[in-house]
Amino acid sequence: MNELNRRSFIKASALSTTALAGLCAATDAVAAARGKPVRIVKHDVVLFQGDSITDAGRSRDRGKTDVANNQPGLGNGYAWLAAAQLLVDRPADELQFFNRGISGHKVFQLTERWQTDCLDLKPDVLSILIGVNDIWHSLDPRLGYKGTVDIYERDYHALVERTRKALPKVKLVVCEPFVLRCGAVTDKWFPEFDDYRAAAKRVADTHYATFVPFQAMFDAAIKYAPPEHWAGDGVHPSAAGASLMAHFWLKAVGS
Amino acid sequence: MNELNRRSFIKASALSTTALAGLCAATDAVAAARGKPVRIVKHDVVLFQGDSITDAGRSRDRGKTDVANNQPGLGNGYAWLAAAQLLVDRPADELQFFNRGISGHKVFQLTERWQTDCLDLKPDVLSILIGVNDIWHSLDPRLGYKGTVDIYERDYHALVERTRKALPKVKLVVCEPFVLRCGAVTDKWFPEFDDYRAAAKRVADTHYATFVPFQAMFDAAIKYAPPEHWAGDGVHPSAAGASLMAHFWLKAVGS
Repeated sequence: MNELNRRSFIKASALSTTALAGLCAATDAVAAARGKPVRIVKHDVVLFQGDSITDAGRSRDRGKTDVANNQPGLGNGYAWLAAAQLLVDRPADELQFFNRGISGHKVFQLTERWQTDCLDLKPDVLSILIGVNDIWHSLDPRLGYKGTVDIYERDYHALVERTRKALPKVKLVVCEPFVLRCGAVTDKWFPEFDDYRAAAKRVADTHYATFVPFQAMFDAAIKYAPPEHWAGDGVHPSAAGASLMAHFWLKAVGS
Repeated sequence: MNELNRRSFIKASALSTTALAGLCAATDAVAAARGKPVRIVKHDVVLFQGDSITDAGRSRDRGKTDVANNQPGLGNGYAWLAAAQLLVDRPADELQFFNRGISGHKVFQLTERWQTDCLDLKPDVLSILIGVNDIWHSLDPRLGYKGTVDIYERDYHALVERTRKALPKVKLVVCEPFVLRCGAVTDKWFPEFDDYRAAAKRVADTHYATFVPFQAMFDAAIKYAPPEHWAGDGVHPSAAGASLMAHFWLKAVGS
């Protein structure tokens, strides 16, 4: 679906009522899980989804990405680091990690490839980090992207709702979009960026997902090293930034 | 003390009996701590000591190294990553991290600078990773280093004993020297390298230190990515290797 059609679709489809009905169904499905932290248990299939931060240079070769726990398929970012740490810690648990992050993607692009790149993989644990391009690409007039925080939140709710329907038992992790105040991240990102963060939090809360507050983490981290140390361009984490994210993600999911 | 004098000193000083007596004293001093894992608690001063793996490009500027928790002074390796993770997790605990690793150093060089670079800092937690140069430099005839595993173990025991006397309450962490089978690490390192690892383990056990089995960790890690991924030259960890070390160190010390 191209951008124009997509926006028309959003306007035409009365998402507010269908979303509400869907949310009620999803709420029933996951009510039992309320208050329980996500836990990664033996034999779990863990899928990381998102944009370039998750992608982190992973291979596009299906021979590599379709094999669980394969470093080239998992990239060099927080997803791989978190996976490697759990795999080394728990060799007998036969955990399977996959990464389907794609650089530059926004929520609607996850939606377009969700069947093959999420639902067909039948993850037990699904971790999503999406949002920075949804605002970034809207700030650059050359890109012609007209997304808003409302579109982001509606699309994100719909995506999670669809996931809950297809995979009622999936353990959901919604990661907070974050930026560091340096590089490409200028004052014009604010306060709008905070709205995107808040929207991601509402998605997590609505669907009883574990929320990983990466922005709060990086806000704490800049007390010990400047923003550039954690993400040179303000968006893409350095090795230190990715390592901190992996640590924090593992704590948040209660692994 | 130069190398020749040092070796003469070792031969002349009947270390076996003094070491034994010292070990008994040290044993009394730390007997109460036996079986208790090291724990990093509020207000602890944590010192990382070792060679290039700990150093990891840290600043030599005293204006930076003498300030706790300062990234340039802590380098870019496992020490900094572990410190950053704890600092972000526990901002109210006022932990203080220092790094005094120096590239190329062997145990006897730690001994030479131990007063200023360890005892004077009065750490509550002391983590040592030393040994890879003790063997590496002995394998390269151009370097003229004549160390042996016995010298390594005696020097290491003496160093820890001296530390226990000066700082009876110090919480000790002895990290296992490790290599990956790639780069500079050839077959001629073995089986001698395993003797160095075993010696480090004996030092840890004798002094009731927490032992961090990095070799076992990397042996597990190479099931998921080749040795070069974790340490290109077999000795110096990559970002992924350092991240894994930080994770593992934090688990081992029971932070």
